[in-house]
Amino acid sequence: MDGPLRPSLSLLGSAVADAIDALRADPPKIHALMAPVAQPLSANIAAALAIDVSMTVDADDAVPMAKSADAVLINLGMADAARGESSVALASLGVPAVLDPVKVDRAPGRLALARRIAAGNIAIIKGNAGEMAALCDTPGAVRVTTGAIDHVAQNGVGMEVDVGTPLLDRVIATGCASGLLMAALLPQAASPFVAAIAGVSLMGVAGAVAADGAPGPGTFAVRLIDALAALDGQRVAERVDLP
Amino acid sequence: MDGPLRPSLSLLGSAVADAIDALRADPPKIHALMAPVAQPLSANIAAALAIDVSMTVDADDAVPMAKSADAVLINLGMADAARGESSVALASLGVPAVLDPVKVDRAPGRLALARRIAAGNIAIIKGNAGEMAALCDTPGAVRVTTGAIDHVAQNGVGMEVDVGTPLLDRVIATGCASGLLMAALLPQAASPFVAAIAGVSLMGVAGAVAADGAPGPGTFAVRLIDALAALDGQRVAERVDLP
Amino acid sequence: MDGPLRPSLSLLGSAVADAIDALRADPPKIHALMAPVAQPLSANIAAALAIDVSMTVDADDAVPMAKSADAVLINLGMADAARGESSVALASLGVPAVLDPVKVDRAPGRLALARRIAAGNIAIIKGNAGEMAALCDTPGAVRVTTGAIDHVAQNGVGMEVDVGTPLLDRVIATGCASGLLMAALLPQAASPFVAAIAGVSLMGVAGAVAADGAPGPGTFAVRLIDALAALDGQRVAERVDLP
Repeated sequence: MDGPLRPSLSLLGSAVADAIDALRADPPKIHALMAPVAQPLSANIAAALAIDVSMTVDADDAVPMAKSADAVLINLGMADAARGESSVALASLGVPAVLDPVKVDRAPGRLALARRIAAGNIAIIKGNAGEMAALCDTPGAVRVTTGAIDHVAQNGVGMEVDVGTPLLDRVIATGCASGLLMAALLPQAASPFVAAIAGVSLMGVAGAVAADGAPGPGTFAVRLIDALAALDGQRVAERVDLP
Repeated sequence: MDGPLRPSLSLLGSAVADAIDALRADPPKIHALMAPVAQPLSANIAAALAIDVSMTVDADDAVPMAKSADAVLINLGMADAARGESSVALASLGVPAVLDPVKVDRAPGRLALARRIAAGNIAIIKGNAGEMAALCDTPGAVRVTTGAIDHVAQNGVGMEVDVGTPLLDRVIATGCASGLLMAALLPQAASPFVAAIAGVSLMGVAGAVAADGAPGPGTFAVRLIDALAALDGQRVAERVDLP
Repeated sequence: MDGPLRPSLSLLGSAVADAIDALRADPPKIHALMAPVAQPLSANIAAALAIDVSMTVDADDAVPMAKSADAVLINLGMADAARGESSVALASLGVPAVLDPVKVDRAPGRLALARRIAAGNIAIIKGNAGEMAALCDTPGAVRVTTGAIDHVAQNGVGMEVDVGTPLLDRVIATGCASGLLMAALLPQAASPFVAAIAGVSLMGVAGAVAADGAPGPGTFAVRLIDALAALDGQRVAERVDLP
């Protein structure tokens, strides 16, 4: 936000670098609602960045945590009654929120839930092409459509971010972890749009660093965490071609 | 199934190699019901092999996923009402299924559930000696009894597979992941018996590769995923002595 | 307990070394109730040490497991109705128990539950300063207050253990895993106080070994498991300055 001059970076690049450096300098508290299978990677990435993350599910336990958090992630990777109730409660707290509508295009119950949540006050919605197509009416929210090239858009105006590695798809829940990074960047980024670009860029650059010489996806996943812990805003923004 | 000639391999060895190559060439969709503690390794192994895996639990969410899957894994590593209902529902869909009756010999509720599931249409049942002894009446199903040497049998006729490493027992849920590999091999293997042999062989050979020079079980687990991502059918079948 | 003479170690150092060697020579059965996000690391550390660990949650499934276990860990990292019922049931079995009151200072429901459990027969209570302050009235139990320097006390008399590495805070749930080690050390240590010191020391020394040259928290977590699998009692006790 108020970092040093960054003459080598564009205006957006500077904003992205500032958001990442602010996250590193003052790690936020995040409450993340997500499926058990996705929790360890996201939580380890959070811990690597000194983010204080809580992941409890039931509303009675999660709402007090989320109320004292700086942002929340609502990831629909597993749907059940407790998660349904809790996700709606978390979305209505007024805490900055990211929605990851995992597989809403394959599970009808999740789609109804996602539409209900998206109608609330969600800063960023992040999904793959099928998921985002199923949630097409989300005025105001930043929409991140992930793929070989990621698209970040708001109110119909958007841009592409082309960074990363196919190895990110060979590790479970890297996309979920990317959503957690966006939530962690929300509190101090200049805008949700900058937080979304910064999250995609941070994960993508870390992936590219980690993939270099990795013998396979197991080693890659370990190096991804190392890379995330080592990167700063300048290095990330320099590696992404931001207008 | 219709791979190239494999003059260096036996008939069974060729079938195993073909099943593994078919899995790599056309990775299936698998729904896996299992305990949270076992999910990350299995999901990462699936992701490493480009298998599209879902792991949600509640029947409302899991049945739509499982219906569009190529095979399901029903792992009883954690028993609760939601998993009980869902496991019975998944077993009755007509989708090829593997049952892993984890610790049915120590938890009475799981044994009753396993017997109910095993009475249905299960292609492969996989467990350790104690678990398999508790589920002795399973006509038709391929029975995989794991141990230092694995036994694979069907209708009383069977064979031994002697490959692997003691380090596989020093990492949590490698046996559960082996069950997931069997499920992933079911759709394209020549038979459930071949899928079972292929699953045991793939995990065992990857374990042997990963154990070579590993300083401990942490590094071994990382290399196991690397090895699984790198192996092909020929290399696996060559390393296992199949009749 | 009845190890060889250890002339290089203090009396407490010898007791700690004996407890660790007894754990390695005869790994116990442990039932651990904990949040899904914390399970994989703890379970992998258990597996690395050949500890037979079960982690199922519902009382119907968990109580039979816990009854045949040598010790239980009750970790409140996630609160819901099933865990609440199960944690109370596990605490009343008469099996040696460790309580980890995770974030009771931030979630009111957890604090009430923790007080109810702590009023029972708990050998060790382990938490950070905020958690332990919220549970100040626990006569009889060994109290482990974790931080840059850990404090272990019983009935107001205590000592400091200064070993470890800041990297332990950059990996999720290393504190939870430390609680599991204490539970695993309870059955054969000379006393709960020795088990607590041994658990803190084992995790701290393994952390220090793993941190040496680690490029980041991802690699560190892998090496931590390797180190735990390789350490013996003598090496741990020599590295900690025990009176």
